[in-house]
Amino acid sequence: MSQTNDAPHEHRGFVPTRRLEALADGVFAIAATLLILDVTVNGAPLSDELVRIWPSYAAYFFTFLSIGIAWINHGTVISLVDRTDRTFLLLNLFLLAFVGFIPFPTRLLAVHLFDADAQAAVLAYGITLFCASLFFNAIWFYGVLRRGLLARDADAHLVEGISRSYMPGPLLFGSAVIVALFLPLVSAAMFAGIILFYLVEATVFSR
Amino acid sequence: MSQTNDAPHEHRGFVPTRRLEALADGVFAIAATLLILDVTVNGAPLSDELVRIWPSYAAYFFTFLSIGIAWINHGTVISLVDRTDRTFLLLNLFLLAFVGFIPFPTRLLAVHLFDADAQAAVLAYGITLFCASLFFNAIWFYGVLRRGLLARDADAHLVEGISRSYMPGPLLFGSAVIVALFLPLVSAAMFAGIILFYLVEATVFSR
Amino acid sequence: MSQTNDAPHEHRGFVPTRRLEALADGVFAIAATLLILDVTVNGAPLSDELVRIWPSYAAYFFTFLSIGIAWINHGTVISLVDRTDRTFLLLNLFLLAFVGFIPFPTRLLAVHLFDADAQAAVLAYGITLFCASLFFNAIWFYGVLRRGLLARDADAHLVEGISRSYMPGPLLFGSAVIVALFLPLVSAAMFAGIILFYLVEATVFSR
Amino acid sequence: MSQTNDAPHEHRGFVPTRRLEALADGVFAIAATLLILDVTVNGAPLSDELVRIWPSYAAYFFTFLSIGIAWINHGTVISLVDRTDRTFLLLNLFLLAFVGFIPFPTRLLAVHLFDADAQAAVLAYGITLFCASLFFNAIWFYGVLRRGLLARDADAHLVEGISRSYMPGPLLFGSAVIVALFLPLVSAAMFAGIILFYLVEATVFSR
Repeated sequence: MSQTNDAPHEHRGFVPTRRLEALADGVFAIAATLLILDVTVNGAPLSDELVRIWPSYAAYFFTFLSIGIAWINHGTVISLVDRTDRTFLLLNLFLLAFVGFIPFPTRLLAVHLFDADAQAAVLAYGITLFCASLFFNAIWFYGVLRRGLLARDADAHLVEGISRSYMPGPLLFGSAVIVALFLPLVSAAMFAGIILFYLVEATVFSR
Repeated sequence: MSQTNDAPHEHRGFVPTRRLEALADGVFAIAATLLILDVTVNGAPLSDELVRIWPSYAAYFFTFLSIGIAWINHGTVISLVDRTDRTFLLLNLFLLAFVGFIPFPTRLLAVHLFDADAQAAVLAYGITLFCASLFFNAIWFYGVLRRGLLARDADAHLVEGISRSYMPGPLLFGSAVIVALFLPLVSAAMFAGIILFYLVEATVFSR
Repeated sequence: MSQTNDAPHEHRGFVPTRRLEALADGVFAIAATLLILDVTVNGAPLSDELVRIWPSYAAYFFTFLSIGIAWINHGTVISLVDRTDRTFLLLNLFLLAFVGFIPFPTRLLAVHLFDADAQAAVLAYGITLFCASLFFNAIWFYGVLRRGLLARDADAHLVEGISRSYMPGPLLFGSAVIVALFLPLVSAAMFAGIILFYLVEATVFSR
Repeated sequence: MSQTNDAPHEHRGFVPTRRLEALADGVFAIAATLLILDVTVNGAPLSDELVRIWPSYAAYFFTFLSIGIAWINHGTVISLVDRTDRTFLLLNLFLLAFVGFIPFPTRLLAVHLFDADAQAAVLAYGITLFCASLFFNAIWFYGVLRRGLLARDADAHLVEGISRSYMPGPLLFGSAVIVALFLPLVSAAMFAGIILFYLVEATVFSR
């Protein structure tokens, strides 16, 4: 006696889309929540400590929201993709690796934004986001253009809109990385602006 | 050859509800379990240490149950909501960010409840719960009132009951925060009372 | 435009069973994997260190398998239960809190089994397993006897078999706890025996 | 009033396949993401530190991709298996325990590859991968040969192809372990080669 597999498997021998979603949701949830481990106090009195460590709160919430926006975009893309193949899965693994990496440079940025190490911190942060946006584009355009993984009933206007909104990502993040070589604080403001743009765009887009 | 997406997608291009549930369950599970990392011993003999560190057990179990009750409430709300949009997803991200934050002030409360830092600890704890209850209300009333995301077959009595039970949340938690400015221990008792109320209410409610 | 909820909701306003499963799978996965953080080396040469820290390997694998067996039992019970209510959810939260606690005393046991602190470590371990087995029984018998949550097509022999195999759990673990007050190593052997029994029983049971 | 279980249960009393997938996806996600905790800086200036710690980046990304490939293979196998029994679940638990163990020796390898401890690090890494590949084979051949868990509509060519590609795994990893006893760096290159082979094979295989 044994348990029959519940879900229908149209194409046996391939990783189902729902497992890609499950792995991605796991990595997103861990990456978003992990920075709470860096929110710690080790001085006295507690009231002063709780004020002094505000950059760790900022890093936690900023990471949570950045990763949350990436999660919304990932959910949108996967909902439009009807099929996966192993190249698509590998591109997703690269994207998830960079998403899981985000907590590290965000923490650096929170600690060093206003000291002598600002440039190194902004560069570390920017390069991570640049790579993530590269793989976001790779996933999307591989799905749309190269392999015909896109669902047949996907709305053409929506697909075009996503293409238009994702394509400038690497360019925008890349420009901010180059600016960081000369003006770290201006670069940091550019990153905040780009993320804010995607946040507003993600919200307005659905109306 | 490739894998066809298993689940039907009525509205392609939007994050499916099941992914919101998956991300939320991941964050709830991590936030609830993470405090076990703070349960550590570093003295001798072990028997004395195991008694001495009882506040870390209390913090672990209290956090686990608080987050568990939030999880039950979140599950109830999402089960009544039939559609999501990106504003709804963003409100959920804010709620989850505060849920993931709960372990930090709970740990402070466990360590400092009876020393000179009690007030700062109670305030940190209370403000976190206050913000979480604010976003719980935002999610619920946005879903019910503003965007018509509520399922058509949702029971009107149930919806009204949830509205009545959620609305006082921010008021109750907010009052306890204000009391903490003058009487930290009374405020801590108020928080325990409010959580106990939601615990009992959640249990009795389903009969 | 928005996303319609994919899954049918027969009883809106209640936490779906699949979310209980998702939260449980998250807690089980985290609790099982977390002990890898305790597998660390901090001496030289590495080859000696890797031998010296064998108790941390033992703790990791023993915890992984113990929690895995609990996960198999939990999956079996939930697959037989057709409905949930909030008391059932709360009993599950208590069980999950003790499952998430298991890594802590297992680590103590691995480090102190053969030194002067053996008794305290065995007691911490045993009380945790005793409480977990109590809530396992509470979940099962609440589901079967008190609230009629059991599926109508659940096989009567299977239900009886599970009742017979779960009921002695608290008694067995409780006896081993009492033995630990006098003979810690005998008690440790009893715990190993009980877990081995459930491991073999879980495997043989399905044939 | 209560919530009816959403999913059909063809064989009540057994752990559903989707819960095995959920536990596995949780363990894979945690194991892949956990190494980000080891990416830390503790010196100045930051720019030098960020260059100096490159082995921790390498360990993170290499672990993420290795575990990701294991995840793709696991997803492929489970998609072909139609039924599970408890022996199958236990074999999966052993595999997941070794997957969750991978971050530890990978970290050792990243730190010690070019110092006097290279041999110990390569051996720790290799034995872990050898055990994981053993249990991968055990899962696959138990599913295919011993218990008839394989789906009836599984493509015979595909099944044969997987058998052919998995079988040499333990032999390849085992040979590299033996080589590590004499030539650690050659052994490390062999491990990299085997993983690269499975990476390319996984990608090409799906065309």
